[in-house]
Amino acid sequence: MHRVKVTVIEEALDANNTIATANRADFDRHRVKVVNFMSAPGAGKTTLLEQAARLPGVRLGVLEGDVQGSLDADRLADLHIPVTQLNTAPSFGGECHLDANMVRSSIPALPLDQIDLLVVENVGNLVCPAEFRIGEDARVMICSICEGEDKPLKYPLMFRACELVLINKVDLLPHLEFDLDKLQYNIDQVHPGVRQIVLSARTGEGVEEWRQWLVALVGRAAAPVAA
Amino acid sequence: MHRVKVTVIEEALDANNTIATANRADFDRHRVKVVNFMSAPGAGKTTLLEQAARLPGVRLGVLEGDVQGSLDADRLADLHIPVTQLNTAPSFGGECHLDANMVRSSIPALPLDQIDLLVVENVGNLVCPAEFRIGEDARVMICSICEGEDKPLKYPLMFRACELVLINKVDLLPHLEFDLDKLQYNIDQVHPGVRQIVLSARTGEGVEEWRQWLVALVGRAAAPVAA
Repeated sequence: MHRVKVTVIEEALDANNTIATANRADFDRHRVKVVNFMSAPGAGKTTLLEQAARLPGVRLGVLEGDVQGSLDADRLADLHIPVTQLNTAPSFGGECHLDANMVRSSIPALPLDQIDLLVVENVGNLVCPAEFRIGEDARVMICSICEGEDKPLKYPLMFRACELVLINKVDLLPHLEFDLDKLQYNIDQVHPGVRQIVLSARTGEGVEEWRQWLVALVGRAAAPVAA
Repeated sequence: MHRVKVTVIEEALDANNTIATANRADFDRHRVKVVNFMSAPGAGKTTLLEQAARLPGVRLGVLEGDVQGSLDADRLADLHIPVTQLNTAPSFGGECHLDANMVRSSIPALPLDQIDLLVVENVGNLVCPAEFRIGEDARVMICSICEGEDKPLKYPLMFRACELVLINKVDLLPHLEFDLDKLQYNIDQVHPGVRQIVLSARTGEGVEEWRQWLVALVGRAAAPVAA
């Protein structure tokens, strides 16, 4: 008797990754690149999105995740960026993060045929958002220098999950007791070699590098369908 | 036949509150007042605890909650504050908050007979920590002005859950486009009349008011046992 070949199904019970893969397929079909944009509250996600409003050859759309309210979405809509608001309260129990299913629920409302790049602004939180794939091409985080040099060591999963770390609010360097080299060293300790861009959304320093990174992302070959 | 009086058991399934009540009873037995101390990452919790190290007539102890590491605990231990480290990874799944059971697990390690005030420094997060009672006397949060004026509107549960809001880093007011009146108005909108202390852990402005608040808390009558 032949032994039957055993097929190992890995992550069979991880519904989040199953749904993230479905999201990914939808995004690919519409040729939309997707960024999962994460940070602590008030690090500057919306301001840095405002600065990406008019990228050469790139039509931006935003999916705005908040526990409640639409303050950030209103700011972006004022700049004529197509924006869809996703609130985790009441439909999703006031969750502190977005997951693949919440993004899936939003897809019918997204103008995928009219955009090239979708930035998903996650709930402000350095813990749980890093644990849930949503079908994105890239995960990007912002670390504001106001938060101190130790954050990579305290929230390493977030720093490890991202392929780009934006170090924001460097215009405040003269007014803080803050060691930028130490932060950059700590980031490199938990995620060796990760790309870092030092910038100030307020003065514009470094912002062009962030904009060019987004333009290059849109030009990337499509990711494999597996999440 | 007499109708049997129906006893309604509310929150019967809320294990967290059951355990918080047990914590509360232990704290009361040792005459220890407990503060649940919450904020976003990097708002200044540890620095404001350092400033509460030597309160007149109050022996302080700290339970330090982090996803991993003991950076903040080490800072407090350097000031000879008895500090116990509670990490949510690996034992508690890397949770983004403390709950009553995590605190309960820590009680055997706490020097309750040698302290009058236990401050539980929660995980840096403006969402989930507000959802879990731990058996505390008071919940206190820090809002750093670097986070922007809109945070009360985006994370209202946290602002509503606390009886004291510390507005920190006001030494940076001259260097930010920040409207302090607007933040204070927004706080009052989501939690009318809540006590607010404007301070700077760096310059010491307002810190004495925070210290006096803690001393007054220790002098309060014990809370009822129900959580």
